[in-house]
Amino acid sequence: MALIVQKFGGSSVADAERVFNVAGRVTDAYKEGNSVVVVVSAQGDTTDDLIEKAREINTNASKREMDMLLSSGEQISIALLAMAIQKLGFPVISLTGWQAGFVTDSRSGDARIQTINTERIAAELDRRNIVVVAGFQGLDRFDNITTLGRGGSDTSAVALAAALKADKCEIYTDVDGVYTADPRIVPDAKKLSEITYDEMLELASLGANVLHNRSVEMAKKYNVKLEVKSSFERIEGTVVKEVTNVEKMLIRGVTRDNNVARIAIIGLDDKPGVAFKVFSALAKENINVDMILQSIGREDSKDIVFTVTKDNVDKTMAVLNELKPALGAKEIQHRDDMSKVSIVGAGMVNNPGVAAGMFEALYDAGINIHMISTSEIKVSTLINVRNAEKAVQVIHDKFNV
Amino acid sequence: MALIVQKFGGSSVADAERVFNVAGRVTDAYKEGNSVVVVVSAQGDTTDDLIEKAREINTNASKREMDMLLSSGEQISIALLAMAIQKLGFPVISLTGWQAGFVTDSRSGDARIQTINTERIAAELDRRNIVVVAGFQGLDRFDNITTLGRGGSDTSAVALAAALKADKCEIYTDVDGVYTADPRIVPDAKKLSEITYDEMLELASLGANVLHNRSVEMAKKYNVKLEVKSSFERIEGTVVKEVTNVEKMLIRGVTRDNNVARIAIIGLDDKPGVAFKVFSALAKENINVDMILQSIGREDSKDIVFTVTKDNVDKTMAVLNELKPALGAKEIQHRDDMSKVSIVGAGMVNNPGVAAGMFEALYDAGINIHMISTSEIKVSTLINVRNAEKAVQVIHDKFNV
Repeated sequence: MALIVQKFGGSSVADAERVFNVAGRVTDAYKEGNSVVVVVSAQGDTTDDLIEKAREINTNASKREMDMLLSSGEQISIALLAMAIQKLGFPVISLTGWQAGFVTDSRSGDARIQTINTERIAAELDRRNIVVVAGFQGLDRFDNITTLGRGGSDTSAVALAAALKADKCEIYTDVDGVYTADPRIVPDAKKLSEITYDEMLELASLGANVLHNRSVEMAKKYNVKLEVKSSFERIEGTVVKEVTNVEKMLIRGVTRDNNVARIAIIGLDDKPGVAFKVFSALAKENINVDMILQSIGREDSKDIVFTVTKDNVDKTMAVLNELKPALGAKEIQHRDDMSKVSIVGAGMVNNPGVAAGMFEALYDAGINIHMISTSEIKVSTLINVRNAEKAVQVIHDKFNV
Repeated sequence: MALIVQKFGGSSVADAERVFNVAGRVTDAYKEGNSVVVVVSAQGDTTDDLIEKAREINTNASKREMDMLLSSGEQISIALLAMAIQKLGFPVISLTGWQAGFVTDSRSGDARIQTINTERIAAELDRRNIVVVAGFQGLDRFDNITTLGRGGSDTSAVALAAALKADKCEIYTDVDGVYTADPRIVPDAKKLSEITYDEMLELASLGANVLHNRSVEMAKKYNVKLEVKSSFERIEGTVVKEVTNVEKMLIRGVTRDNNVARIAIIGLDDKPGVAFKVFSALAKENINVDMILQSIGREDSKDIVFTVTKDNVDKTMAVLNELKPALGAKEIQHRDDMSKVSIVGAGMVNNPGVAAGMFEALYDAGINIHMISTSEIKVSTLINVRNAEKAVQVIHDKFNV
C-alpha cells in the first residue's frame, strides 16, 4: 500500500458538486488501502474576490496582510473538502499550511518553503485519517502566515511528497495530461504517457501551463514521481520522472507563449561592459530576461534585443530610460505583438536537423522569425503573435509528432 | 497614556466604507497616544455565507471542520481592517486567534478560553503597532482551530483586556449604550451613563441584546472596565463597572424577552424527587431552564411550570414525554405566546415596594401575570406576548426611570 499525495486546483473545487467529485477521487485511493494526503487550492474565484475586497480598501496594502487575507481562501476549501469526505463516510482531518508544518522564509506573497515538519501529518496518517492540506501557504519563523506565490499549490504538493517520501504525487488539473501541442490549436496533438523533468521544465516555462516550473524543479531535485491527471475524467495522465524512453519520439511538444514582449536597445556604444550594465540593472529590479540577442550594428555601435514578460515592460522601459545616457544608446523600443513558439525534446541536442526543420516549416508557411534561441532540449523562435497558432500547427505537422 | 482594547462586531465592518469608519475610530485612539488592540468579528454576512456553503455539502459536518471553515471569516476582516489602517498611514499588524495567543479547550464550536499567551501582542505593542485581533477564535492544545460560540468576539475582547491588564475595553455596537428600556418601544427611555456588572448581567440575560452574558461575567471576574459605545456616532456610551452611584436611580432598566416559552407539567404525584427528575433530565440535554414555579395542585398532586427558550421547546417536550410515565404526570403543556418583562436595578433588594409597584402598573393596564420570579436585583413577570410592549411602557412610566 502506497502513500499518495494528490493535488487539486481551484477550479476542481469550485462548487459543492466539484468538491464531491474530488472527495470521490480521494476516497477511491483511500479505499484501495493507500495513505492519502490531499493538497487543495482556494475555490474557483475566491482568491480574485479577496483581492478585489483588498483593492477596494488599499491598492498598496502590505504583502504580509495580503497573505493573511488570501490564505483564508484555502482554509475554506480544505474545510469544505473535509466535510464532503466525512459525508462519504471516511475519517478525515483538514490542516492549514502552518498546521501541516510548512515553514517558509519571510518573503510575503512569494515565500519559499524551507522545511516541512511532518509530525502532525504523520500522526494523522497513523490514525488512518485522510489528510487535507491547504496549499499555497506556510508560516515564517516569526509566526506570520505567508503565501508561496504563483504555482504555490503545486509546489506545496511536491514539497510535501518529498518530505513524506511519498510514492507518488498526483497533480489533478483541467487537462488530462501533457500534450505534444495545445489540443485547442493542434487537433491531432498527442498525449504523452511519460516525460522527463527537464522536458517538463522547458514545456512549463514555454507556456504549456500544466505545471508550474517551481514544482517541477523541486520534483526533480527530490526525485518525486509526478503524475499529471484530469480532475474530471478517470483516465491515465502523464508521468513526469527522471528518465524516459526518448528513442522513439524526438520532439516532445510544440508550445507557444504569448506573454512575451521584445525590447530593443538600438545604437549602443560598442564598448565592453554594456551588456553587463543592462542586465544587472534589470536583475536588480527582479526582471527576468528570456531570449537575448546581441548584434554588431553599423559603425562603432551595436544593438541588444531581448524579451521579457508583458507585465514587466513598463518597469523594464523605466530602468532602461534611466540608464540610456550612461549606455550611450540612441533609442529604446518595445513591441508587445510577439509570441514565442518552441519545440522541446530531450533527444534534440544530438539532432542538428531539428532546428533546421523548424525554420523550414515556418519559412514554408511564410512566417518571419524575429529571434531564435536554443538550449540542449529546445529551440525557440520569436514571431508575430498573429502567426502563433499557425506556427504551432505547421511545426507539429512537420515533425509528425 | 492608556492601553485600550476595542471590539467591533460584524455589521461594523460589513463593507469597505464601514471598515474605514472603524479604522478612523482605532487610529483616533492611537493618535491620542494610547496603545490600541482591536478585536473584530467576521464581516456582515460572511459567517452565514460560510454556513450555507457547508450545508450544501454536509449538514452533519464535524464541529472541528466547521470551526476551520468559520474562523476564516475573521481572518478576512482582520486583514482588511489592517489594510485600511495602513491606508490611513499607521503601523498595524493583524493576528489570528492563535497568533494572538488564545488557548482554548477542545469544545469545537463552543470553546472556552483557557489562557492567552500575550507575548506576541505585547511585542507588537512595544513596536507601537496597532494590533488587530480575530475575535471568536482560538487554538486547542492539539493545535486545532476552535471557535468560541455565541457572543464569542465580545468574550475575546474582554479576555484580552483582562490578560493585558488594559485600562478599558470598549465594545462598539449598533446601539449607543445601555438604555432604561428599548427606545423603539419606550421613546423616552434614557441612556445610562453607568451600570454595574450584575445589573448588566441581568439586562443581558433578559434580552437587552447589547452585550453577551459570557463577556460580562468575565469582565466582572477580572474587573475589566467595559464601555458600550456606538460604532457610528461619536458620543459617550455606557460604562459597565463594579460599583456605580445607585442612590439616585433605583431602576436601571425595563426589558422584555420574547424568546421564551412556558412548559407546564400538570398533575404530578406529590412525592419527593419529582423536580429533581425533571430538571436533571433537562440538564442532561443541555436545556437551560429559566423561571420555575412549583404549585400544590388539588388532592395529592402538584404542577411544575417553567420557561425555556423557544428553540428548546421541541427537545424539552420530547424529554418530558419520555419521562411522563415515570413522573406520573397527567398532562404536559407548552405555550409559545409569552414574553418575559423585567425590571433591573441593584438597589431593589432593599426596596420591597418595587415589585409591588411593577405589579400595580401591570394591573392598572389590565395585563395578566402568568409567572413571577425575583432575584436580588430584578423582578421578572411572564405575560402574554401581545401585551409585552405596553407592559414595558407602563412600567417605565410608573417608575419614571
